[in-house]
Amino acid sequence: MLDNTIAAVGPLDESAMTAARQLQARLTKPAGSLGALEELSVRLAGLAGSCPPPVPDRAAVAIFAGDHGVHAQRVSPWPQEVTGQMVGNFLAGGAVVNAFARQAGASVTVIDVGVATPLPVADDHPDGSGGPHGAPEPVVPRLVNAPVRRGTRDMTVTAAMTRQEALAAVEVGIGVAGDLADAGAGILLTGDMGIANTTPAAALIAAFTGADAAEATGRGTGVDDPTYQHKIEVVRAALRRHEPDPADPLGVLAAVGGLEHAALAGFVLGAAARRVPVLLDGVIAVSAALAAAAFAPDSVAAMVAGHRSAEPGATVALRQLGLTPLIDLGLRLGEGTGALLALPVVTGAVRVLHEVATFDSAGVAEK
Amino acid sequence: MLDNTIAAVGPLDESAMTAARQLQARLTKPAGSLGALEELSVRLAGLAGSCPPPVPDRAAVAIFAGDHGVHAQRVSPWPQEVTGQMVGNFLAGGAVVNAFARQAGASVTVIDVGVATPLPVADDHPDGSGGPHGAPEPVVPRLVNAPVRRGTRDMTVTAAMTRQEALAAVEVGIGVAGDLADAGAGILLTGDMGIANTTPAAALIAAFTGADAAEATGRGTGVDDPTYQHKIEVVRAALRRHEPDPADPLGVLAAVGGLEHAALAGFVLGAAARRVPVLLDGVIAVSAALAAAAFAPDSVAAMVAGHRSAEPGATVALRQLGLTPLIDLGLRLGEGTGALLALPVVTGAVRVLHEVATFDSAGVAEK
Repeated sequence: MLDNTIAAVGPLDESAMTAARQLQARLTKPAGSLGALEELSVRLAGLAGSCPPPVPDRAAVAIFAGDHGVHAQRVSPWPQEVTGQMVGNFLAGGAVVNAFARQAGASVTVIDVGVATPLPVADDHPDGSGGPHGAPEPVVPRLVNAPVRRGTRDMTVTAAMTRQEALAAVEVGIGVAGDLADAGAGILLTGDMGIANTTPAAALIAAFTGADAAEATGRGTGVDDPTYQHKIEVVRAALRRHEPDPADPLGVLAAVGGLEHAALAGFVLGAAARRVPVLLDGVIAVSAALAAAAFAPDSVAAMVAGHRSAEPGATVALRQLGLTPLIDLGLRLGEGTGALLALPVVTGAVRVLHEVATFDSAGVAEK
Repeated sequence: MLDNTIAAVGPLDESAMTAARQLQARLTKPAGSLGALEELSVRLAGLAGSCPPPVPDRAAVAIFAGDHGVHAQRVSPWPQEVTGQMVGNFLAGGAVVNAFARQAGASVTVIDVGVATPLPVADDHPDGSGGPHGAPEPVVPRLVNAPVRRGTRDMTVTAAMTRQEALAAVEVGIGVAGDLADAGAGILLTGDMGIANTTPAAALIAAFTGADAAEATGRGTGVDDPTYQHKIEVVRAALRRHEPDPADPLGVLAAVGGLEHAALAGFVLGAAARRVPVLLDGVIAVSAALAAAAFAPDSVAAMVAGHRSAEPGATVALRQLGLTPLIDLGLRLGEGTGALLALPVVTGAVRVLHEVATFDSAGVAEK
């Protein structure tokens, strides 16, 4: 499944991109005046292989949830049970990702790829009618049970996963991307939940980019100075123990990754193989995107960087991927929130190609 | 009318802001993890005087259109007729601002505050059913005829307007803001159209901030190097001729402003007086916002900077206003396009306060 997916990832269609550039030049606006939106619309035409590309509607957020053995090293001040509790919150419609998804009209799918604690039953809103204040939910949040194992092992002691486990998690992500694309999603958005998951994200970023642990590691949900220094040492120790080879992305994911990171790498590859754009959220997403790019370099063409996380590792990863984020507002929440804030920018960039009049059709003089 | 409006502009409500900060701390997310959106939500609570503040729905874009005598100085490569032709395009639903407004569900009002050429009749979509490709229009674009004069005078030769004309234009803007607020708009967005209008915007920014003409002037719709140098000299010459006094905002607007700039200053003041947030678009908007701030310093509390225009003067003005833009994607189109792209960020920031569960209500443990 992974090999077939990698083989299906191809380059952008140059003729569709040329057509999009020519169309942009005829629209009633000064050439280039939509800045980054013009380049984005051209790239999405190349991804779709058509001009204009389809409007990226029926957006779907996939929140991959997992726990982390490295939590035992006290890299996070939050108890591990919060991962499962937040899954319950997502299903009840009460988290920030739900509020943003309702606003954007996006569906929410939560994938348990390895939560350590039993999931609470979401019974607050049994009819899926909405969040705590009754706002309408366009699509009821859905839970996919696909645990590969109940949390990773502690990467400072042993590999976080076996290669087989990492592969299984990657294939969960590929499957979710395919299912959502089959259901008609015009764009896929990455989401994540996992207490301590910025620690494996930092290790992945260091492994794939060669950055020092201190450069790739951030404060996550807001750790204090001693915990932050300790977290850097934990990342450094894991890298020293495993010496992961960036040319072997499955090996890197197994050694120092997380179940949700591996699944997200597969999700990105699955989107690219289907030529559906994938809007990346924060530091967890871009660490997984580095793995996807190592599996299939052309997959970067399907990636749109939603926002620049406040986590420093995100900037290191975005630089290596060659992606410029659409939003930069100091967010560090995850869940898919940054990707959802950027969604209207992506949709708007494409709608311009569909809806804006040309100089000729509108009877507007040119300079 | 202007004096009454200025008198109605007041400071933020500290108790509502404190309540919003306390509410943010109880929501199911790490403290501070929504970055700039948290500060924004607190400020909007202070503006509304309630926590949570009302969700800024029924957004309304007001596009003020005018022409400029300084066009005779060849500061733009576009013929002056394009102002009126683009008004026709707005009313037919064919411009970028229409595509973005349809996507955001915002209404579009075009105000002729001084277009030089006769406006074309918008007969392409007499039922207002949408743009060239039939996308739905939430509200039919509406034209308000309120010309103060058919374009300004050439500011390099004489004052662009008399003080009475500038006041009349400011009061047009105040009136439009009041009408839209009366109709239920929860947020007002600035838009503009006027060939050559980045030249008076640069002069206003230089006059209100003390910046040099070269620092405040940009390439507008994309002028070549000789035209750009000439444009700087035109701005410099106008400033030298009039020596506008930044403590006399009506005098500054009359000497080196534009009809749409003056109307936008009034629009911002009108929004602030009604305690409705006003989302600023690009360089024309922020140059007008400087005038509004000179009339009523507390009006800045109602302003949200939608985006950072590629025009360098916008950054100079935003710095003086103390505003950080929400979007920074190299746009330089105007019309209200940058403000519309930022609208979901503002709405999302407020919806969080309405819809997200607390740690207690969701049964999520804290750190």
